[in-house]
Amino acid sequence: MVIRENFENSLQELKKKISDMGELSIQALENAFIALKTQDVEIALSVIEEDTEVDDLDDEINQFAVWLISKEQPVARDLREIIGALKISSEIERVADFAVNISKATIKIGKSKSLLELTHLEKMKDVSVQMLQKALQSFLEANIVMAKEVSDLEDQVDEYNSETYKTLTNYLREHPEDMDQLLQLIFINRHLERAADHITNIAESTAYLIKGKIYDFNS
Amino acid sequence: MVIRENFENSLQELKKKISDMGELSIQALENAFIALKTQDVEIALSVIEEDTEVDDLDDEINQFAVWLISKEQPVARDLREIIGALKISSEIERVADFAVNISKATIKIGKSKSLLELTHLEKMKDVSVQMLQKALQSFLEANIVMAKEVSDLEDQVDEYNSETYKTLTNYLREHPEDMDQLLQLIFINRHLERAADHITNIAESTAYLIKGKIYDFNS
Repeated sequence: MVIRENFENSLQELKKKISDMGELSIQALENAFIALKTQDVEIALSVIEEDTEVDDLDDEINQFAVWLISKEQPVARDLREIIGALKISSEIERVADFAVNISKATIKIGKSKSLLELTHLEKMKDVSVQMLQKALQSFLEANIVMAKEVSDLEDQVDEYNSETYKTLTNYLREHPEDMDQLLQLIFINRHLERAADHITNIAESTAYLIKGKIYDFNS
Repeated sequence: MVIRENFENSLQELKKKISDMGELSIQALENAFIALKTQDVEIALSVIEEDTEVDDLDDEINQFAVWLISKEQPVARDLREIIGALKISSEIERVADFAVNISKATIKIGKSKSLLELTHLEKMKDVSVQMLQKALQSFLEANIVMAKEVSDLEDQVDEYNSETYKTLTNYLREHPEDMDQLLQLIFINRHLERAADHITNIAESTAYLIKGKIYDFNS
């Protein structure tokens, strides 16, 4: 059983890397929002810089997975678990990219009087972070019920998203002079909706690696 | 050598599926643009419907790859090729999603007098299709020079993207009454820039599976 034990250890190591990557992405989202709220360009720049850590972890996970498949030649659920980890890491990488996009928008907004309070953006970020935590936990614990909860939370994000879009475009009609900032807020609104979508994909991949069946929670 | 021959045949089958998926995505981009130019909601709806074909192929490729790894237990370049195919198929799926997004924007624009001629959107689509054709060919022929050319073309898309953004926002300042359409064109501008980005990722994955080294053509 030494071989099996080695494999289990390697799988735990892979999961640990995914979990670290998830934590970094959550931190990136939180920091991107601190930057947006306080209009702090320095913090926004640091989110952009620190994204290389997430990218490096993603590369590391890919190489580790290839090494692990070569060495252990896993089949069935073991193999699905590794392939699932690859999919999940590329989704997490994408979530971190949205934090970068939010930071770039924050830099463009600069010091102009903030219109953030018109929006549900912070609530959308909060729900997204909660979704990502749940998706990671469901992956680490192979918990399919929790994976399903992630997609229920996504409905909230979608609702905030349409409301925010309506509010911002109506405001833009009345205040064309605020266009530059309003466009950036409209983009951030979209980034968060997309981030929630990719987090739902993580939950789907988790469901796949548990059950071996492909789920589409988005539809 | 029968085993090797079987493996080569399976790998060709995998590549054929990727190539089919690529062709469907190119067709989706072309049709999305026909819909946008002719303001034809029916065509836009058909692009959205037909996206399930791309999604189904993506699922098929995933399951085929897992089956192939289980059966053949490949190592080194063979394994990288399969893992690369998985990454590439999820990037192609994403490109097709942008065609869907463009179609949704087209439906929102509806019959309002088209402002498309203000933009470089069609040129961006043309370059993106050329990029995707080149990326697919570089993958099928394991041609790394061609992979590099893909990222050179991306610079053109980026340039058209910033010019179009400037033109559309300047126009919006003068014509707030056209806001709804202008916002949709700004979104399409972004979708095309993102599509080109994902196509560049395909070229990077191709370079990785050829050389076993990770490339970042975007930076």
